[in-house]
Amino acid sequence: MTAIARDFVSLVRQVVPGERATLHEPVFGGNEKKYLLECIDSGYVSSVGQFVTRFEKDLATYVGAEYAVAVSNGTVGLQLALVASGVQPGQEVLVPALSFVATANAVSHTGAIAHFVDVDPETWGLDPVALRIHLQSIGRLDSGKLLNKNTGREIVAVVPMHTLGHPVDMAGILEVSAEFGLIVVEDAAESLGSFIGDVHTGLFGTVGMLSFNGNKTMTTGGGGALVTNDENLARKLKHLSTTARVPHRWSFDHDDIGFNFRMPNTNAALGVAQLEQLPGFVTKQRALFSRYEQVFSHVDFGVVKEERQGTRSNYWLQALLLDPHHASDRDVILDSAHDAGIALRPLWNPLNELSPYLAHPSAPTPVTQDLCARVICLPSSASLMDVAFS
Amino acid sequence: MTAIARDFVSLVRQVVPGERATLHEPVFGGNEKKYLLECIDSGYVSSVGQFVTRFEKDLATYVGAEYAVAVSNGTVGLQLALVASGVQPGQEVLVPALSFVATANAVSHTGAIAHFVDVDPETWGLDPVALRIHLQSIGRLDSGKLLNKNTGREIVAVVPMHTLGHPVDMAGILEVSAEFGLIVVEDAAESLGSFIGDVHTGLFGTVGMLSFNGNKTMTTGGGGALVTNDENLARKLKHLSTTARVPHRWSFDHDDIGFNFRMPNTNAALGVAQLEQLPGFVTKQRALFSRYEQVFSHVDFGVVKEERQGTRSNYWLQALLLDPHHASDRDVILDSAHDAGIALRPLWNPLNELSPYLAHPSAPTPVTQDLCARVICLPSSASLMDVAFS
Repeated sequence: MTAIARDFVSLVRQVVPGERATLHEPVFGGNEKKYLLECIDSGYVSSVGQFVTRFEKDLATYVGAEYAVAVSNGTVGLQLALVASGVQPGQEVLVPALSFVATANAVSHTGAIAHFVDVDPETWGLDPVALRIHLQSIGRLDSGKLLNKNTGREIVAVVPMHTLGHPVDMAGILEVSAEFGLIVVEDAAESLGSFIGDVHTGLFGTVGMLSFNGNKTMTTGGGGALVTNDENLARKLKHLSTTARVPHRWSFDHDDIGFNFRMPNTNAALGVAQLEQLPGFVTKQRALFSRYEQVFSHVDFGVVKEERQGTRSNYWLQALLLDPHHASDRDVILDSAHDAGIALRPLWNPLNELSPYLAHPSAPTPVTQDLCARVICLPSSASLMDVAFS
Repeated sequence: MTAIARDFVSLVRQVVPGERATLHEPVFGGNEKKYLLECIDSGYVSSVGQFVTRFEKDLATYVGAEYAVAVSNGTVGLQLALVASGVQPGQEVLVPALSFVATANAVSHTGAIAHFVDVDPETWGLDPVALRIHLQSIGRLDSGKLLNKNTGREIVAVVPMHTLGHPVDMAGILEVSAEFGLIVVEDAAESLGSFIGDVHTGLFGTVGMLSFNGNKTMTTGGGGALVTNDENLARKLKHLSTTARVPHRWSFDHDDIGFNFRMPNTNAALGVAQLEQLPGFVTKQRALFSRYEQVFSHVDFGVVKEERQGTRSNYWLQALLLDPHHASDRDVILDSAHDAGIALRPLWNPLNELSPYLAHPSAPTPVTQDLCARVICLPSSASLMDVAFS
């Protein structure tokens, strides 16, 4: 173990009390068991049930959206959002090269082609300036359609992602999108509880996707939701997520090629209980940032990621950005921490460097490559604030 | 209400004790609550957890398969099975015109084209004789590939479905499939607990899909599983269902365009408890058939569907086939029953008559059309045997 790795592990240990630390684990301190038992007693455990309806209502209220549609997870939710927004097979969809692979996979699952763009060194999310320069370079307007000069395909949508919970520059992205006629679908998988001004992430574009996977700020086991203020789109999302069946008490007619993407009532029961505790989880995750910032304040090898002015981050994953001349220390820090029982991780590998996406269209992505080489994510469970300082 | 509708409702009432009757509802009489609480206490609610592993092991044992892979539902399971079996976008996949729409949708979700074939009047599942005649008529072998002469596309796979739990003629289908070089993927969504001889449905082709939706013989809320005896295929199914991530303690490399189709641990906890009771559920569903057969034995308007010799049906949905000259009574019977609080239903509309599939390739499907016009499904919950005759 190198000196810097030893220091790093020792500093994390000041925040993480136990021997072992996971990256992000859920907290079940509320009505989870009560609602699950109620769900079983009701006999409704599948895609119809009072908890699904209640979860969607409560979630819409928390987020400040007109409509929420619960789905089986974030990946299929993003696919559904793209399909319902009109993305067609063979078209191109712009996504940040810095994201979890699900962002690009969801595009692939619609039959469209993920086209990668770089991120901003401040927000760590899609860079509107780089986006505009790239589209001016490779785009061509033809009868109101934006074509990729290199591939001949139409570019129809952009999927900004709020990295680690930190809101991306939506104002800038909306401006460029309007200029080039792009649909905006937000990947807010990581940013439940994150706001730009007073507006929750996911509500700036046509539709936003939230995730409730087990490693997220709150969980439904597996699950996701789509939020929107567009009534017709909300109706379409629900219709397509439930096999596109035309309502009738006994006839089985389906007017579109639908999906089975609906969240089961059992998972929604868990969600209702978790949502009741969400403000507390976010408060603790935010407090955890202050704790890490304090602990790492005197080091010379890097700095803990802080929210951007004008935004309120849920601090889903705490992250430390190594100084450029310490990038080479990353792997030994990660390995040493794992050896010591602390599950640190880097960001993802750049999506445009993964084998299934190597041949996909891509802008230059120097910032993505730099951040992937220098960021280390820290244990981030809300429960760390209970244990460490109770 | 017509005389026949009145008789029909009155006969169903001899089996269904209460005022209202659903078509199929789950029974939670075992360890469902216990395991769900254990799952919450474990902290593992998402796609990793001991209940997922245990559910897969227990399911494989029950079915007699080497491998089971739990997924979020049957529709995505069938999609995954087709992708993992090598079906490519633009190819054609043969499916029975008589099925729930999910069978065709799963094909569409892979980017392949559903091509409809008729069913057998005895099994109500894909007819191997009609299949052979159709392929001889529209197929052309070219360098070992089976091409559709009309569309020019390659036909690569066939998806037999075990209708209402009654096993289809797999021997016949396997023979025709071998003759034409087709991959066989079984849609066993309805047939958990149904056997041909000693072999469970889903284990005759390359891979079989089971469903645990809320209306099935047992449920996981939402869920499905793939069963196979092929180790490499099982590994591929699991890999693709979990974002195709290459195992590493901290690096995020993905070597394929994977999915998020894994069953959450919460749903698997429910599944483990339901699986413990499955043999009892099947016994009751089979006893319910005898009860319906007895009650409807003296009518002259139709006959209750019985299992085929050499097969053992789970009798998931009980069904009565109206005599041809009583087909015109179907709608009034269905409406009258619903008015009386009994949720009877017909089979599905023929898939090749649904608007999204009207332009798809199809063999003539007279048997499908005939059955769709004449079959009425009866309340089929295992719990009816507890209440009616306790």
